[in-house]
Amino acid sequence: MVRIAVDMDEVIADFIAKQLILFNAANGTKYSKKDLAGTKLRLMHPEQAETIQAMVSDENYFADLPVIEGAKEALGKLAEKHEIFITTAAMEFPTSFDAKYAWLKEHFSFIPETNYVFCGDKSIISADYLIDDHMRHLENFQGQGILFAAAHNYYETYEPKMNDWYEVYRYFEEKH
Amino acid sequence: MVRIAVDMDEVIADFIAKQLILFNAANGTKYSKKDLAGTKLRLMHPEQAETIQAMVSDENYFADLPVIEGAKEALGKLAEKHEIFITTAAMEFPTSFDAKYAWLKEHFSFIPETNYVFCGDKSIISADYLIDDHMRHLENFQGQGILFAAAHNYYETYEPKMNDWYEVYRYFEEKH
Repeated sequence: MVRIAVDMDEVIADFIAKQLILFNAANGTKYSKKDLAGTKLRLMHPEQAETIQAMVSDENYFADLPVIEGAKEALGKLAEKHEIFITTAAMEFPTSFDAKYAWLKEHFSFIPETNYVFCGDKSIISADYLIDDHMRHLENFQGQGILFAAAHNYYETYEPKMNDWYEVYRYFEEKH
Repeated sequence: MVRIAVDMDEVIADFIAKQLILFNAANGTKYSKKDLAGTKLRLMHPEQAETIQAMVSDENYFADLPVIEGAKEALGKLAEKHEIFITTAAMEFPTSFDAKYAWLKEHFSFIPETNYVFCGDKSIISADYLIDDHMRHLENFQGQGILFAAAHNYYETYEPKMNDWYEVYRYFEEKH
């Protein structure tokens, strides 16, 4: 048994899917995730940075994010053998606590709430693995990092970097 | 520099002081902290356990807790040399997130919010020290625990156990 810490946004919760829908609707644009390779909407549209910040700071923004494909099934299987913790940098969005908690209860009820961690600096996390889409969190982490592919990290190289939950599941099946 | 993780309730926030005031007012009792040595109100009054649970589950319960004597001054000084994280088992009180966050911002503004951790099982914490009033959290912790004296742990022995923030401060001054 190993302990696997799993980030939320863009790893199990599709933070960007909702942002794209709302942004496109408000601006008449037709961006898809491919258009965000190596960048972010607020870098492409700095004049809208404040609007985007206000959007994701809405306390309900996180309430209805779609689940990333395969996350529920893969973590459900991994939880039978391993210890799963959800470790999310929620302090960046202090309006999001309640919605994040409710979202986890709704979609990942097999993970006990004792294993939810709302934090900021992830160097505080003690685990064997951390699956995260941000290089800075992996660099702070003492265990084995796994970079989960997201549009914004498209040009980042990291070993291992995984494209989806099927790859993550296979990795743990082969190793443990 | 070492990393010191610090619990909130009954370590820096006086969770019990408010509970005693509300309980005494509602029941005409005159309990003080001394009367709670080795026990808890809900163990002394099991018939009121649900009422007490409802009291501390109020989303504003945590908003105006008094600061434990000396905590602000000791942590302020320790933060000049060391890395301080606030690690609270907030998942036990999922209604408390916003009030806890605001309370920390108000009273411990010198600790950056990136160093707040709302968790459940504290074995997830990676730090050199953990100052906590619960034996179960110290037992789960891999670094050096410090048991902070509280009424409910009056009969617990642990090495080191500290009575107040003056002792805690002296301990770190002598060691580091």
